[in-house]
Amino acid sequence: MIVSESILRAFTQNIFLAMGCSQEHAVLAADVLLLSDLRGIDSHGVARLTGYVRLWEKQRINATPNIKIVHETPTTATVDGDGGLGLVVAPFAMQIAIKKAEKYGSGWVSVRNSNHFGIAGYHGLMAVEKDMIGFAMTNASPLVAPTFSNERLLGTNPMCYAFPAGKYPPVIVDMATSAAANGKLEIAQRLGKQVPEGWIQDEQGNYTTDPHALKTSGSLLPLGSDREHGSHKGFGLSATVDILSAVLSGANYGPWVPPFVAFLDPPNDPVGKGIGHFLGAMRVDGFRPVDEFKSHLDNWIERFKSASTINPDQKVIIPGEPELEAHADRLKNGIPLVDAVANDLNDLAKKLGVEALK
Amino acid sequence: MIVSESILRAFTQNIFLAMGCSQEHAVLAADVLLLSDLRGIDSHGVARLTGYVRLWEKQRINATPNIKIVHETPTTATVDGDGGLGLVVAPFAMQIAIKKAEKYGSGWVSVRNSNHFGIAGYHGLMAVEKDMIGFAMTNASPLVAPTFSNERLLGTNPMCYAFPAGKYPPVIVDMATSAAANGKLEIAQRLGKQVPEGWIQDEQGNYTTDPHALKTSGSLLPLGSDREHGSHKGFGLSATVDILSAVLSGANYGPWVPPFVAFLDPPNDPVGKGIGHFLGAMRVDGFRPVDEFKSHLDNWIERFKSASTINPDQKVIIPGEPELEAHADRLKNGIPLVDAVANDLNDLAKKLGVEALK
Repeated sequence: MIVSESILRAFTQNIFLAMGCSQEHAVLAADVLLLSDLRGIDSHGVARLTGYVRLWEKQRINATPNIKIVHETPTTATVDGDGGLGLVVAPFAMQIAIKKAEKYGSGWVSVRNSNHFGIAGYHGLMAVEKDMIGFAMTNASPLVAPTFSNERLLGTNPMCYAFPAGKYPPVIVDMATSAAANGKLEIAQRLGKQVPEGWIQDEQGNYTTDPHALKTSGSLLPLGSDREHGSHKGFGLSATVDILSAVLSGANYGPWVPPFVAFLDPPNDPVGKGIGHFLGAMRVDGFRPVDEFKSHLDNWIERFKSASTINPDQKVIIPGEPELEAHADRLKNGIPLVDAVANDLNDLAKKLGVEALK
Repeated sequence: MIVSESILRAFTQNIFLAMGCSQEHAVLAADVLLLSDLRGIDSHGVARLTGYVRLWEKQRINATPNIKIVHETPTTATVDGDGGLGLVVAPFAMQIAIKKAEKYGSGWVSVRNSNHFGIAGYHGLMAVEKDMIGFAMTNASPLVAPTFSNERLLGTNPMCYAFPAGKYPPVIVDMATSAAANGKLEIAQRLGKQVPEGWIQDEQGNYTTDPHALKTSGSLLPLGSDREHGSHKGFGLSATVDILSAVLSGANYGPWVPPFVAFLDPPNDPVGKGIGHFLGAMRVDGFRPVDEFKSHLDNWIERFKSASTINPDQKVIIPGEPELEAHADRLKNGIPLVDAVANDLNDLAKKLGVEALK
């Protein structure tokens, strides 16, 4: 099924409204999910809608949260998301970071008691639109084993760094700190394909190419895959995300992070509240005039785009470029939904009394 | 040769004094190099001393720099290092970040017109000593090819995140954003050993295990090694370091970064001044009380240290732990110098009229 952006957006808003979200929150949450679908990151868009609803049904997502600042300095804050949708809590926190940056040059917000916040890039882009550099990260359900371990202690813990350019689109680094994101495994599972060595290990810590190995106590590997190729660096990055998002805010960290899937219960010995995010914004003109920065970033982009490549048909890809191409294409031609997702969404619509997708 | 910390420190200070550095700068620069040797990171310590001197001889390092702030907001600043030693310029910049954080919660400094700053961890630790979270990164001579390219366009561009713990030592993530740091290649070269596939490629972009391949137009690979294992993420991290350190400050970036080795001339079409760094500090108590943060970070460390491991003899390593063990050992037992380094240092001593190491 191919659905236009506007129809899918209205549908998604209606689902959030049916959950009891305010109009403002429903519009915002749908905006975050839609940007993911538009950018071609299918794993983080409306495909997750049923997941959010199931957590709400289990009372693990609060549709009417009282999101508030619980600790603050001129440029730092801790936000309690009151168990709300991360899709709403994270933009709230990023707005605080942006306001602090407007006044003092930079702003940094650690968030507790939240839920999955969609793509990190959405929040980074909020800063970019204000000629700021955006930072966004979140911890997540434990699926990744640290180097040398066979225990799932970390999420795929993504980090995003976003920079405004001049004549080119912004540079958006938005990456899981694991060798492969869970979404890539899900695709291989659906297609019945094997995955490359270096993405997952089985319960004993042996490499496996079976994308279902996570279901039998396997684990994802940190970026770098093994010690020799720097998996301790992927572990270090993932640890950084976990500490900034959760140890700093008072959220759950490591293996205590509540699972995103509703059929798994959260640990019964929490060390904090909900999951955690970390968001930041720095004014470019806190360092040099914006036009100077943008013209040098344009020059940087041109130099990398024109780099000599191993295969002349495969140019160097600037971070964020493929997502931008998908965005333009899907705005024009609609968003493709695989049957499983389309059926899931229409089952959901029926249950919540929302008009179905056609 | 094994040299005591105090003797090697005095020797290193004397070399910097002989270059014409002030007493204060010589003490500081030696402190940065010594911490590297103490922490077991031999590639970044006194082994680099002759490299700094050669650049000074070529007038590419200014021994008496007038380091100054050229742009500022309450929590951001750009520093011009006036061509000074990065070993001096970076701590100057980190002090500014710390002062801003004391007043406003956080401080961020981008640096241009500098040189190699030693280990990133030194600068991160400066913040940790003040119960702050430290950030430190730098760009470097181009040795790394972006994903799909066979051109050396990026340095090994390290990033450091440093966190103060309570009863445990601080968590220090300090990592090159390439699959392997250049220092590891140098070790393989000295020992005449091959390196693992995934560290370097030859001029045509084929994997090679020859550690000398960098000398024949080969290139280091980003963390992740190849596209399938996430090398675009290593590239994205390296790009982030390059942009924050140089596009933001007005330093040289990408292939324009001047080489650290004096026998290679800098590009004759610079896009900025010198090399760039980016340093930051955030007060922990800008987010939650320090004792709460530290006790949760201790809990985090304990949980990861006690994780189940694949090989029961190989525990999970907390980032920064091996360096701390080396530190304790070398403070007590002295710092081992391989013959090549010891001879190099004594040749240098002779040339500069400094008392030799014995």
